[in-house]
Amino acid sequence: VTRRVSTTEPRRGPGRRPGGGDTRGEILAAARQQFATLGYDGATIRGIARAAGVDPALVHHYFGGKEQVFVAALELPFDPTVVLPRLVSGDPAALGERFTRFFLSIWSNPGTRAPFLALLRSATTSEAAAAMLRSFVARVLLARIAAGLDDVPDRELRITLSASHLLGVALLRYVIKVEPLASATDDEVVAIVAPTIQRYLGGS
Amino acid sequence: VTRRVSTTEPRRGPGRRPGGGDTRGEILAAARQQFATLGYDGATIRGIARAAGVDPALVHHYFGGKEQVFVAALELPFDPTVVLPRLVSGDPAALGERFTRFFLSIWSNPGTRAPFLALLRSATTSEAAAAMLRSFVARVLLARIAAGLDDVPDRELRITLSASHLLGVALLRYVIKVEPLASATDDEVVAIVAPTIQRYLGGS
Repeated sequence: VTRRVSTTEPRRGPGRRPGGGDTRGEILAAARQQFATLGYDGATIRGIARAAGVDPALVHHYFGGKEQVFVAALELPFDPTVVLPRLVSGDPAALGERFTRFFLSIWSNPGTRAPFLALLRSATTSEAAAAMLRSFVARVLLARIAAGLDDVPDRELRITLSASHLLGVALLRYVIKVEPLASATDDEVVAIVAPTIQRYLGGS
Repeated sequence: VTRRVSTTEPRRGPGRRPGGGDTRGEILAAARQQFATLGYDGATIRGIARAAGVDPALVHHYFGGKEQVFVAALELPFDPTVVLPRLVSGDPAALGERFTRFFLSIWSNPGTRAPFLALLRSATTSEAAAAMLRSFVARVLLARIAAGLDDVPDRELRITLSASHLLGVALLRYVIKVEPLASATDDEVVAIVAPTIQRYLGGS
């Protein structure tokens, strides 16, 4: 594998050693820029490698395929390709509760909330960022969740509506801090919301 | 009523005539600044009038009380103090459908969506704007909706959870444009979401 250090303005972290060291970070910076400019479908491993000044094989080496680069570029605090199948595959009668509790746990922690909030902020401001988030939902979330559900009518619509509810709860509870939602306990929120998610994902 | 033109940098619209003309606009600009800085509770008609360089009686003359100044300052495309009681007071069995359809109609129109989206954007970025939105929900929405509902347990929590769902739908459907939610018909969305809002507001 040939490795060249990019000379075309890679984003340099504070820990970067001169002449190399943060190749992974440079690839991610290039990937973010490529996904934002070209969208998920337009971006390629080859193009990301070129922008980062490295061999495409190195991108594969660090991340795997395009979806893994994409997920890594979003800098999420967990890997949805691992977590989602686990959430979907448990007891079907507790699907709504598992999703609701997982979502609350992500958003209640400022550290894990930050990357999602950043994604959401930029998606409400820039069409490029909205396209990124759209791709994330379409490529990473929808298919994985749908695969674990019974084939109910409007399955994809019901998944996006579930996501819309949980996202709205997160926004009003943790970001805008609207009362009494902001001060309610997780159990109080779960008692009302989980049956809805259960109904949506179960198809009733 | 004494009227003085402020000399302390009021926001001047393009159509403002020198020496007066857009007193109403100047009051609203001052109100936005006061609400953002001091919060809903901290802001006063007197303080707004002072910042706008006008007599408090003129603020009352143009708007009425503090709540009306607040609603006007948000520049919403409809008056929630008029619309909400109407939505709540119809057939109780169709409450969920009325709220869902009204919300979709507001957000599907770019002109009426804009001020809400602006409010939401700034509320996810600045704590002052979040405080404004919080006040809006607490002072303008919650009380008016709660007044028209049966006294179910957790009534206020259920109203904010209804709002969270509708807000999330609006975001994913009209702003991020996530499929298949973005292309679904209103009837398809209403068929799934309205029963949830009905359940929340009806207390089951």
